[in-house]
Amino acid sequence: MADNVVVAGVGMTRFGKYLERGVRSLAEEAVGDALKDAGLEAKDVQTAYFANAVSGLITGQEMIRGQAALRNTGLLGIPIFNVENACASAASAFHLAWMAVASGQYDVALAVGAEKLFHEDKTRAFRAIGTAVDLESLQELKKRMAETQSKDAPTGDQKSGENRSFFMDIYASMTREYMKQSGATADDFADVAVKNHDHGALNPRAQYRNRCTREEVLASREISPPLTLMMCSPIGDGAAAAILCSNKAATRLGVRKPIVVQASVLVSGRDRKQDEPGAAERAAKRAYEVAGIGPEDVNVIEVHDAAAPAELMVYEDIGLCKRGEGPALLRTGKTKLGGKHVVNPSGGLLAKGHPIGATGIAQIVEICEQLRGTAGERQVSGARVGMTENGGGFLGRDAAAMSVHIFGA
Amino acid sequence: MADNVVVAGVGMTRFGKYLERGVRSLAEEAVGDALKDAGLEAKDVQTAYFANAVSGLITGQEMIRGQAALRNTGLLGIPIFNVENACASAASAFHLAWMAVASGQYDVALAVGAEKLFHEDKTRAFRAIGTAVDLESLQELKKRMAETQSKDAPTGDQKSGENRSFFMDIYASMTREYMKQSGATADDFADVAVKNHDHGALNPRAQYRNRCTREEVLASREISPPLTLMMCSPIGDGAAAAILCSNKAATRLGVRKPIVVQASVLVSGRDRKQDEPGAAERAAKRAYEVAGIGPEDVNVIEVHDAAAPAELMVYEDIGLCKRGEGPALLRTGKTKLGGKHVVNPSGGLLAKGHPIGATGIAQIVEICEQLRGTAGERQVSGARVGMTENGGGFLGRDAAAMSVHIFGA
Repeated sequence: MADNVVVAGVGMTRFGKYLERGVRSLAEEAVGDALKDAGLEAKDVQTAYFANAVSGLITGQEMIRGQAALRNTGLLGIPIFNVENACASAASAFHLAWMAVASGQYDVALAVGAEKLFHEDKTRAFRAIGTAVDLESLQELKKRMAETQSKDAPTGDQKSGENRSFFMDIYASMTREYMKQSGATADDFADVAVKNHDHGALNPRAQYRNRCTREEVLASREISPPLTLMMCSPIGDGAAAAILCSNKAATRLGVRKPIVVQASVLVSGRDRKQDEPGAAERAAKRAYEVAGIGPEDVNVIEVHDAAAPAELMVYEDIGLCKRGEGPALLRTGKTKLGGKHVVNPSGGLLAKGHPIGATGIAQIVEICEQLRGTAGERQVSGARVGMTENGGGFLGRDAAAMSVHIFGA
Repeated sequence: MADNVVVAGVGMTRFGKYLERGVRSLAEEAVGDALKDAGLEAKDVQTAYFANAVSGLITGQEMIRGQAALRNTGLLGIPIFNVENACASAASAFHLAWMAVASGQYDVALAVGAEKLFHEDKTRAFRAIGTAVDLESLQELKKRMAETQSKDAPTGDQKSGENRSFFMDIYASMTREYMKQSGATADDFADVAVKNHDHGALNPRAQYRNRCTREEVLASREISPPLTLMMCSPIGDGAAAAILCSNKAATRLGVRKPIVVQASVLVSGRDRKQDEPGAAERAAKRAYEVAGIGPEDVNVIEVHDAAAPAELMVYEDIGLCKRGEGPALLRTGKTKLGGKHVVNPSGGLLAKGHPIGATGIAQIVEICEQLRGTAGERQVSGARVGMTENGGGFLGRDAAAMSVHIFGA
């Protein structure tokens, strides 16, 4: 079953600030582009999985978000499922669409993620993002975070919902632990942001297309030490979509540039001890097994750099280097355009943007374009195997949901 | 693929008012009961689908509701998906769990739905339920509803969010159309409530166990004409769970009383014209095809009587009688305990209760117990084939999501 499903077409909006557009408008653009890219029509799609994380708290639309968003696309009538897994909502929707096709139940499935975070009341987005943790154990989490604060790294007032998300306090806490284990410094995290902004400058659909320097990143507003504003993914709006189909259907429907799904893996996190493998490591290991490859075979990777240090941690989780060697790998330049394992050529969440429920599929859009060789100025030369890593939420020290996909040209 | 999946075990809380318990506590009870019923342990479960509709708006927990609710069950680590489809959320979760097993990807899957609607601030529940419609087209809907109001049936102030849900205004509008088509009267709707309360009185897990008379139903508080309070499903809390596994795994794991899933169908609604088939009719037709049976073969059925008139409409949608003959079928007594096609032996949503995200699986719990012959005082004699119909949300004049399942002993 591992390789009988292909991505037939992909589409996405530019990520950014769309105060005048709603989730429906963004979703329509992405779905329309994906259908056009696949050379298919709405009537060819047999089932749809819709990812969104915060509409309930931002716009009030809960319960049937996908049906509402897709109302004018010609897709209504088919099975539609609303899927949520925090920042991994879109990869979850993609995984379920993959399963629908892999199972033999459906020939053609749509996965779409759409999100609007910008609202006149900016605090709504920060508060909404804060629900990606288990609220019942928030108190316990705050206590642990207070314990890991070093004397020389004041962390502000730990309040969220004003001009930043509590979520970044969690990343900051994990980052301080990671600095102890790896020797990573704020300079390293700034360098991740510099690299991803360099990539984003080449991506017409990135929210930020400005290059920046280490000094600028370090000098930007403090969010939660050691994180500065430019080390954190921005608030943004956008949508991304992918059409999946069976190999047979791809031939029958004349799909021109199918990309093979070599592995589609999703796991949930656990209340783990510090020395137990996290969700990303477990998901990546399983994905490599299913695809029958190893990290050395992967040319291009989109990872979940919601905060810059996370990219270095993921290098280690997915086996690009050993534990503690993330900063050293970054310094070799191997993860920059022109390197052996290019990470986040799209600009990543830091520069391309992070409309939560769209991100996981936007990563897949980038990988499909890279494997087709149509990524323009940011093309990874000779890319044959690509990978995405999309995590969502926190449970203790683990991600709540984690998805890893591997694709082949 | 149609019949290689069985329900290995089911469990549910009593539905009711649990001000002192959260979603987690309710989910834990249902999951624990389902595992015990199946003779399995948490470690046997390979993937889980969690249904919930309103936690985001009632408690603030969005994004990772299932991981938060299942945190102490020993299930974390496996793939967990948060699924939402308004009042059909639980059937959607069950369908995806079925697909996970039917696909051959997993041997054992959990579907669980849990909901808390009661809150110190009662208006929260009413407002939350109101999000099961496409908010962008709410204005259009209100206009159409105003047009279908008859002079002699004042509909109140059309305000919601105070002591009732706007949702019941939609049901009332549909009911007025149905009365014209079928000749149904308020007496008929009251009789549905009387029947389902008679059934609920025999169900230890029903929220309401009181019998009632037609006169009492008609005299209860007006909600939205012709609907009175006792014709509307109540606000309630609860959880329901089902363990699904492959036939092979059922044998290997020693499952004692497997119930065969003969058909698992979900569709979305459409912006249909009045004479086009609705989502329930389409889903039922497909389910009969897959199961290779017809309505005459079904002994026991749980339908989505969120408002009493809906039960009569569904009689017609699922082919128990012809169009317009719902009221006549009710009067024959065939849908009451002792009849040929017993509908809502559990008490239905009207008497058993309707904690939104739990309902679809609670229906399946009832059917499994009926087919095993363990339904006690409310046992349908000789039940061999059972069916569930679970609808969610509104899109124009259609349900937004609709699921029909058929089960065999």
